[in-house]
Amino acid sequence: MINGGNVPHLLTPGPLTTSAGVKEAMLRDWGSRDPAFIAMTARIRDRLVALAGGQGTHSCVPIQGSGTFAVEAALGTLVPNDGKTLVLVNGAYGARMARILKIMGRAHEVYETPEDKPPDPREVERRLAADPSISHVALVHCETTSGILNPVVPIAEVVAAAGRALILDSMSAFGALPLDLSAIPVEAVLASANKCLEGVPGVGFAIVREAALEAARGNAPSLSLDLHDQWRGLESNGQWRFTPPTHVLAALDTALDEHEQEGGVAGRGRRYADNCKLLIEGLGAIGLDLYLPEALQAPIIVTVHAPTDPGFDFKAFYDAIAARGYLIYPGKLTGADTFRIGCIGRLGETEMRGAVAAIGDALDGLGVEVRGRKRV
Amino acid sequence: MINGGNVPHLLTPGPLTTSAGVKEAMLRDWGSRDPAFIAMTARIRDRLVALAGGQGTHSCVPIQGSGTFAVEAALGTLVPNDGKTLVLVNGAYGARMARILKIMGRAHEVYETPEDKPPDPREVERRLAADPSISHVALVHCETTSGILNPVVPIAEVVAAAGRALILDSMSAFGALPLDLSAIPVEAVLASANKCLEGVPGVGFAIVREAALEAARGNAPSLSLDLHDQWRGLESNGQWRFTPPTHVLAALDTALDEHEQEGGVAGRGRRYADNCKLLIEGLGAIGLDLYLPEALQAPIIVTVHAPTDPGFDFKAFYDAIAARGYLIYPGKLTGADTFRIGCIGRLGETEMRGAVAAIGDALDGLGVEVRGRKRV
Repeated sequence: MINGGNVPHLLTPGPLTTSAGVKEAMLRDWGSRDPAFIAMTARIRDRLVALAGGQGTHSCVPIQGSGTFAVEAALGTLVPNDGKTLVLVNGAYGARMARILKIMGRAHEVYETPEDKPPDPREVERRLAADPSISHVALVHCETTSGILNPVVPIAEVVAAAGRALILDSMSAFGALPLDLSAIPVEAVLASANKCLEGVPGVGFAIVREAALEAARGNAPSLSLDLHDQWRGLESNGQWRFTPPTHVLAALDTALDEHEQEGGVAGRGRRYADNCKLLIEGLGAIGLDLYLPEALQAPIIVTVHAPTDPGFDFKAFYDAIAARGYLIYPGKLTGADTFRIGCIGRLGETEMRGAVAAIGDALDGLGVEVRGRKRV
Repeated sequence: MINGGNVPHLLTPGPLTTSAGVKEAMLRDWGSRDPAFIAMTARIRDRLVALAGGQGTHSCVPIQGSGTFAVEAALGTLVPNDGKTLVLVNGAYGARMARILKIMGRAHEVYETPEDKPPDPREVERRLAADPSISHVALVHCETTSGILNPVVPIAEVVAAAGRALILDSMSAFGALPLDLSAIPVEAVLASANKCLEGVPGVGFAIVREAALEAARGNAPSLSLDLHDQWRGLESNGQWRFTPPTHVLAALDTALDEHEQEGGVAGRGRRYADNCKLLIEGLGAIGLDLYLPEALQAPIIVTVHAPTDPGFDFKAFYDAIAARGYLIYPGKLTGADTFRIGCIGRLGETEMRGAVAAIGDALDGLGVEVRGRKRV
């Protein structure tokens, strides 16, 4: 068992299951202005930039809070007051970016596609050509609402060709799906410690082109969420402006060691792809239907159609699986009755097979029919 | 040794030294939408309200991030767009509240007193009478810039008598200095997990009069830092809107157990007062001078004048003390060369005596003269 038998196993898109080593890294207190902690912060920032291939062009600005805090900080800091953002929406996280911009009173336009349809790069190109006031495009890498993988590379290319800047919310993909900033033109990538990096929640980060950070002074409508000011603070003396989540950062530092030991993005991505394959095969054998076609499915989280049997009750189903040590996730789609199962976190073959068995047994135990076949 | 011999000992105003039990509470992963975690969140919120005597009137809204995030969230959410805040400033944290309001573009006025002088309640009264547009007053309970204790009760009384609302930043005092919301009229109290509650950093909270939360819909210029929306989310289904720092919250839950076991605010405050007394006596015996007169000194952090010996170098002094396992804090005053030593966190007599000995030995070892007496 890859995670030392920790239960519950979190088959969720974060917070997720972390290793024993990551958690044990939190068994020490750190002075946030002490040289040892300053060195740890610098090390984490450097490694995250390197993971994204952004050495020499981008800088990592960590920010306290959840991933949404990092997204809001990036939108508020990088888009100037007279800028306009084209937000690509095919799920709740794209919609959330639009909501953040609306609350901040920043101009934006939404290009929405159905939850099972990626945005079309040609339509992005068309909209950018039609509206020269659009300065930025915002895209979600893997939209965990459905688990869909959005086409980062072609969209980054049309955005760059049009001379605009791409802000990429890579929250649930960073560290497991390839992203090379030296080859793909992205202004800012946003992610958090407790997704594919397998740290614990409490800190997010933005990996931002330095010229953009430089130019962003005074943009942010917030002190806490000002990425420029946070970056300046870190660059000036290595210290966080405001109390950092020291234990969470120590866990991330260890999580980055383990990520490297696993073979980096390629190794981590391979395990998740294997997890996803086992999960999909297992669900198929049970007779459950997936929401997304395979070509659109990222190896992060799988959306499953709820059985049509009127006797199916998600709460009872969740509890029956939880009783066996596995926590799954409710659906988040607007138009279909679904539930979700994550394949990220410190989980491997044993846990995925265990989860599938727990799901099958839960349906049996609850007497739920799947595809007309009563499972008891 | 009260903290099980963990080193380094953090003589800082947070992050600070936590118990082994608090850290061990982080050795488990939590599903953030799981009933067990929902119950933990509810328990923490209820206990924090009870600690402040706010049952039936106030509600606790936790918010991801550092204490400043909670301060910004409270100012942005509770002060309406057409409101005006009188900010009482006698140190960096009061000044920070004014800066937050300035960045948000919210009307405010600063009443500043020197760093060693508390605000005068009669002057607050006069200003409120002179300007009916002032809707809120913002005050720092213990200003850790100097360690000064500000007069919460008389200021709360003049603010309430004038029909205005008090926002109290009690970051470094909450849980150790008495504050009874059933007797003192305070609209909102702000604090964080990793000060006198002895949790780890990563979450702050606001304890807010429910009527004020109710009325605050749509005020916040931020999604992440909208306390109304966060409160509504928690009240609707017990869940956080955005990924909570699950391990940090598990640590806070255990920290609240330990706080109760120590006798609550009275017990915690007594230990800190004892720590402070030992520290002040020890520093006096070494010949070091304190910045504040005893009557203004809160038992939280002590500001010490740096020795006037031109050979004194803070960095070398810090390192010599750190080598013995104690981390102190640089000064933050605008007008005097000082350093600071905290007396909060999981520290008792052994650690305070050890810290004083380390300070004396460091001065000896570095050959620094104190009050004209060479210490070698």
